[in-house]
Amino acid sequence: MRESDLLAHVYALAGGINAAEGGVLVGPGDDCAVVRTPRGDVLLLTVDQAVEGRHFEPGTPVDLIARKAVARSISDIAAMGGVPAWGLAAGVLPPDYRHGRELCQALHAWGRHWRCPIVGGDIAVGPGPLTLTVTIVGNMGGADPVLRSGARPGDELWLTGQVGGSFESGWHLRFEPRLDAGRAAARSGLVRAMIDLSDGLGRDAARIGAASGLRLVIDAARVPVGRGCRDWKQAVREGEDYELLMCVAPRDGRAGAVPFDADPPLIGPIGVVRACREGESPGATIVDADGHEHDAGEMGWDHTG
Amino acid sequence: MRESDLLAHVYALAGGINAAEGGVLVGPGDDCAVVRTPRGDVLLLTVDQAVEGRHFEPGTPVDLIARKAVARSISDIAAMGGVPAWGLAAGVLPPDYRHGRELCQALHAWGRHWRCPIVGGDIAVGPGPLTLTVTIVGNMGGADPVLRSGARPGDELWLTGQVGGSFESGWHLRFEPRLDAGRAAARSGLVRAMIDLSDGLGRDAARIGAASGLRLVIDAARVPVGRGCRDWKQAVREGEDYELLMCVAPRDGRAGAVPFDADPPLIGPIGVVRACREGESPGATIVDADGHEHDAGEMGWDHTG
Repeated sequence: MRESDLLAHVYALAGGINAAEGGVLVGPGDDCAVVRTPRGDVLLLTVDQAVEGRHFEPGTPVDLIARKAVARSISDIAAMGGVPAWGLAAGVLPPDYRHGRELCQALHAWGRHWRCPIVGGDIAVGPGPLTLTVTIVGNMGGADPVLRSGARPGDELWLTGQVGGSFESGWHLRFEPRLDAGRAAARSGLVRAMIDLSDGLGRDAARIGAASGLRLVIDAARVPVGRGCRDWKQAVREGEDYELLMCVAPRDGRAGAVPFDADPPLIGPIGVVRACREGESPGATIVDADGHEHDAGEMGWDHTG
Repeated sequence: MRESDLLAHVYALAGGINAAEGGVLVGPGDDCAVVRTPRGDVLLLTVDQAVEGRHFEPGTPVDLIARKAVARSISDIAAMGGVPAWGLAAGVLPPDYRHGRELCQALHAWGRHWRCPIVGGDIAVGPGPLTLTVTIVGNMGGADPVLRSGARPGDELWLTGQVGGSFESGWHLRFEPRLDAGRAAARSGLVRAMIDLSDGLGRDAARIGAASGLRLVIDAARVPVGRGCRDWKQAVREGEDYELLMCVAPRDGRAGAVPFDADPPLIGPIGVVRACREGESPGATIVDADGHEHDAGEMGWDHTG
């Protein structure tokens, strides 16, 4: 079974959770779950795993392994427009693993780096590859979380950086979670939907489309193709960009105007959101220079193991 | 390296966290971390892993695997006197794993069972054994969390159930996290320290002693030995009891009186807390029928892989 199929099953299972149970505002299916505490804080909850041989190669420096494990979950907080607050780190270490202390130190250091202290964890020794699981709790600090489901027809598509070439360039180990841009997005009031790009611009754009019941249409010529990437097709297929894709209401109705200042500056618009045509399912389309339409949902990186 | 050594290293690393960073009341080293949200909710954070071949045998029914994975973390919430609120479940599934859907359903069902909806998660396919990682967020609902570090000389030691025989009897797959008793403990105002027994009464008692700078002294003859257990020595060594050990101020100063009603009823007292003698390190001692003293910290289950 593909991971994406299984996740779809989980989302279906969880359909009854939202709003039905104590303080759950958004259940499985977005970058983070959103919950409300008894006194009214809106918190974000996310967990991600990093498995040797899957998310990093054997021989990767311990510091970069720890960095990636923490950054993946921090990026999910950024994708909702939140601020990371506290982290938990769990690890399964191979029996002969010699870098346990160094790894723990690095996890704590990267937590502090993103102002998100690692407040607890678990360690097990077991057969199999080194596996790290990082949970991050974030908070919205009064802003509304930006979901995948809020896009509207006419929204423009903006990115926080280039896509593609993440593995070859090593970006997937050194990416900077877009906390500032995500925060600015939540505060702007203009960003209606947002996602961080882990499985490729194609698949992740399609996820916003599916969640919003609309079609995202990307102009291939405007996709900011990463260095070392052959062309837009490769760039939208590859995963682990960890840039944010935003659906933004045009500022003052002016198409193409930069919607707000962010660090790094937003790139775009690379496309628009429209209603689905007759018989067309929600998702995303990429239009190439010849006007041909490609289904973006099929252009991405699936974790098929 | 033994897991316990590595954990000691993590606790040392984390020594600077408590009270130093945003909202962290208790960092690594207790059953849960304790944090305070901006509006003043006191939350508990905990994560635990369940690895095939370590925490459950190959061939264990999927429902019991899911149950144990969730229950381990719920038990940590119980050990602070909290109420579980929300959970996250992450899994690394072997490439040929056929029970993904069933497993997800079971994780969600057990979350609901303990009124703790699973609001998010992550799935990866990777080599190695089936590994589940469950994070639980709990809240204290106005009560103070019961830490490991609060024991005082004269406190009596009480348990929520028998110890030992967990693996043979299958209790380790079917244990009931002691949420009611833990909650009653936090509300009673009499319980000064508490822990859930995962690594054996001996080692876990020693952890309260170490955290409190005192010595827990257990009367071997009073240890409630589980069915199928040969004797007290085996009972205190074996792990995965998931009962709570409490250090309780004698009610109205009456030694031996049941301190408060709980479900199940408390068993004890099985010993007392005293100051360390000259040259004696904090920890725990078990006194046998002949008056011989055994160091409890050496009597337990270490995860040496």
